[in-house]
Formats: sequence, C-alpha cells, structure tokens
Amino acid sequence: MADEFSFIRWIQSQQSKSAGVLVPAGDDMAVMNWPPGDLLLCAVDQVIDGVHFDSRQRSPRQIGRKVVNRNLSDCAAMACLPAAALACVALPRGCGEKYARELYLGMREAADVFSCPIVGGDTGSWDGKLVLSVTIMGKSAGIAPVLRSGARAGDFLYVSGPLGGSIISRHMDFRPKIALARELASKYRISAMIDISDGLSRDLGHICHESKVGAAINAPMIPIHFDAMALSKTDAISALDHALNDGEDHELLLCSADEIPGLFQIGQMTADPAIVIRRAGRTFPLTPAGWEHQL
Amino acid sequence: MADEFSFIRWIQSQQSKSAGVLVPAGDDMAVMNWPPGDLLLCAVDQVIDGVHFDSRQRSPRQIGRKVVNRNLSDCAAMACLPAAALACVALPRGCGEKYARELYLGMREAADVFSCPIVGGDTGSWDGKLVLSVTIMGKSAGIAPVLRSGARAGDFLYVSGPLGGSIISRHMDFRPKIALARELASKYRISAMIDISDGLSRDLGHICHESKVGAAINAPMIPIHFDAMALSKTDAISALDHALNDGEDHELLLCSADEIPGLFQIGQMTADPAIVIRRAGRTFPLTPAGWEHQL
Repeated sequence: MADEFSFIRWIQSQQSKSAGVLVPAGDDMAVMNWPPGDLLLCAVDQVIDGVHFDSRQRSPRQIGRKVVNRNLSDCAAMACLPAAALACVALPRGCGEKYARELYLGMREAADVFSCPIVGGDTGSWDGKLVLSVTIMGKSAGIAPVLRSGARAGDFLYVSGPLGGSIISRHMDFRPKIALARELASKYRISAMIDISDGLSRDLGHICHESKVGAAINAPMIPIHFDAMALSKTDAISALDHALNDGEDHELLLCSADEIPGLFQIGQMTADPAIVIRRAGRTFPLTPAGWEHQL
Repeated sequence: MADEFSFIRWIQSQQSKSAGVLVPAGDDMAVMNWPPGDLLLCAVDQVIDGVHFDSRQRSPRQIGRKVVNRNLSDCAAMACLPAAALACVALPRGCGEKYARELYLGMREAADVFSCPIVGGDTGSWDGKLVLSVTIMGKSAGIAPVLRSGARAGDFLYVSGPLGGSIISRHMDFRPKIALARELASKYRISAMIDISDGLSRDLGHICHESKVGAAINAPMIPIHFDAMALSKTDAISALDHALNDGEDHELLLCSADEIPGLFQIGQMTADPAIVIRRAGRTFPLTPAGWEHQL
C-alpha cells in the first residue's frame, strides 16, 4: 500500500523555488520572501464530500480544481493577487496514491492559471470521506483590498454575470474573476465587493450587514443563467428564485457610486437597512435563502 | 437549530483589530499589515476524529488546543514567531453551536499564549466526523528560519526533552517550544531542526534525507519519558522503542556543531547516509517506525 511519505516526496518533486518562495513544501513551514510595503491577505475554504461535491460523480481533478478556485474567488472578492496556497486533505483510507496525486494536480491546474504556488500541506487518511481545505494568501500589489463594509446609500449594485443553477455543473468548474476585480478596483470607486458563494440574497445580506445599509433590487434586471431556467423546469422553483438563492455562482457582487459599463446593474443601496426586491410595480422583502450549514 | 452564520457572527465578536491585523475574520479574506523586510512562513496541519483524537473522550477545548499547538510547534521547528492563524472545520451535523464555540475557544487559548490572532476560517457541517485544520503564518522577526536541510556530518544531535508514550495524554496538551527554539537559534549555530511529531526515528530520517547525511544515535543517551515506561508495562514494546518511534512528542530535534547545555545530546550526524543506533557496544540500523498514514 502507498504511504503518506511516498506521496509527500512526490509532491516535493513537483515544487520549485522562486524569488518569492525561498523554501517550498517539504520543511516544517514554507518560507516566503514577502514584498516590503505590501499587504498580506489570507483566507481558508474547504470542500466536503457529499456537501460541496459527490466523489462518486466527480473526478479528483475536478475536486482539486474546485477547492482552489473557491479560494481564488475570495482573492477576486478582495481584488488581490494570489501569492501562495496551502492544502490540507483527509483522505478516505485505501483511496490510493494516484487519487491523492490527481487531487493535487487538479489544485495545481487551477492555481497555475494565476501562477500561484502550492507551498505546503498536510495529508491524513481515515475511515471517513474526503475533506479538502485550501488556505490562500494574497498580496494587494498596488490595489487597496475591497472590503464588504464600504457600501453607501445611493451606490449602484452590480453583478458580474448571470446567476442560478450552478449545481448542474458550473459549481465544479468556474474561472475566478480576479482580473476583472482588479480592473474594476483600479478604474472605479468600488465601495464593497463579495463573490457570490452562498447565493445572491445571502451574500447581499453580508454586504448590507457589514456596511450598515440596505438594498433595493429590480427583479427584471437580474441576469438569469440558462442553468437556472433549465433547473426551474425540473423543480417547483422559479428561475428568478434560483438566481436569487442558489449558491456557488462565484460571480462578483459589488457596489459603486460610478456607472460601470459591462456589468449588470441590478439595484441600488439604501439608507433603510431592509433588503427589498421590486417586481411588477410592487416591493417585497428579500429573505436570505441561500445555502447555510446547520450546526 | 443553530446555523453557520450565527456561529460566524459570534466569532466576529471575538475578533479585534491590531497594528498587524487591518481586517480580521469577517470579510472574504483577512488583511495583515506585513512588516517590511521580514520573512513570511506558513504551514497547515489538521486533526481528524479517530486518528489524532477521540471525540468521545476529549473535550472540544482540548481538541481545539491540540490542533493549534501542533501548528505552533511547527513555528518552533523553524524558530519563527507565530503571526496569525486560520481555522477550517468540518463539523458533525447536529453537534450544536456550543460545541463549535468550544473548539474555537480551545484554539484561542493555545494561540493567545503566543499573542497569535485567529484571523479567518471556514465552517461546514456534514454527516461525517470532526475534521479540523489550522493554517499558521509566522514571521522570522530577526532570526533566520532553521531548515531541515542544513545538518552536516560531525554535528551533534540533540533533543529537547524526554520521549515516548505521549498517547497516554501529553499528545492532547503540550506547550510548543517556540521560546526555546528562538533562544537556541540566536545563541548557537543550529544547522537543522524539526519538531518530533511522527516519532524520533522517522523525524530524524526527515533531517537526514533533507541534509543528505546519516546519524548515529547512542541508545543510553535517549531521554525516556515516564509515560514510555508506563506504556511498556501494558504492551510488549520496550520503553526505548516507545521513545524512538512514538509520535506527537513535539520536542525539538536539532543538529549543531556547538556544545549546547540543557539539551539531551543523543548522537552525532555522519557522512555515511545510514541511520544507526548503538547499544551495549553493538550497532544496529534504526528503521523509521513512527506514525504513517496509509493512503
């Protein structure tokens, strides 16, 4: 049977030093050469078998790509550049080293798109199912981080792409919008930004809560993904509700006082802390209904 | 039933800003103000129910402390100062928010000893058992990181404390030897260092492999923990074998050309890449037999 150290030695063979990475994976800690004067950002995100993916239906490559892309999408939400990642995996005992390598290669595929090295990790095996977490470190690299807390009443509310129905397949394979986020943050006054992972209604709630404002959305302005329409034909949920509440779209949701071409302007921030949606001349409260883990 | 966001809001209420932490947990990423000219170190380590602890026997406080202390022990192994941590937890569904809070408070207890803020995390729940991972970031803060790869033939081999039998209870509650590591690294020429987590025989193997040297250990010089002796009375394994092979001692194992008082000098590094142990006038090969995850 393959062992942990054979896998770790293989990972080490995949590593390389660079000006930024003085000591890559293989020691107790990786050592990075941090650019002076830059801000360091960091976040962690995990995927769990049966919750974020189904290991019977998805290849380890796909699973590896997904967990890294989720983290890269957090970089997009902050308008920072990915600098390095670390991965932690609890493997089902007996999955074999090939499976573990494929997970790693999937992570690498996603990280390589942004030249982000994977500089460390921890591997364990157990009687349970696959749990995979990734920590991402980012650098501001000349663009101030865009927080959730800066939205102001009167700001326009934008989303970067069509929403809903990601569960059909997009949630496993999406391109984090880092380049777009940094372009927007350098050209416009972006007062708040988040990536839509829990669903528009809930993630808008996060911005409103942190910024102490409300929002009014115009239902007809919400871009509805083809997948949301396809899904609404198979269940009793409208395509609009899919667009409002489905998770893992990983589009950007942002607020700005500026008119921004090329984005979908779906509403406006309000001084009244309520979040409402306008449809056919009437106004309804928008209740957050995206994904939520019950503890 | 409690939900994820209620737990996250509670965690946010536990956070504070500082000169180093511009944006703590609560946004897509934490933002740290990195000291210019310093080196950034990072590592991740996890604990898994049934492998690293038994959730039926250990409190969530203990489990939280353990996972953070494992990471802090990696800081000791590199002689760096902890700067910030992130935590990722897959919770058994229905464990309740109190359990999740206790895990967090245990992590905080361990991190607070070293004034290390927990700046981010991810919470999920599932049908499986508890998996908890922590990422640690460290700063060199004036002391060059001590790698595994610098040992040279002729260096003395030292260990910082008695070994073996940690499974009885020490593995759940130990004090990472950060202060000692930094004192040693500032006073002496430490050529290689590691914290003993996989067992002396295996962790010495890591140093030898990375440094391309061998080692000769004197069996009578190995400090044997009382727990190793107690354990040897309950199984067919000698106390020496427990000291050589048991994992999770989290003592420092280090190489230096200097005579260092206050440490246990257990042998010497050799140009011959073999690792041997001398006992009663005879020399035996030392086979790594510490903990290893089978994939």
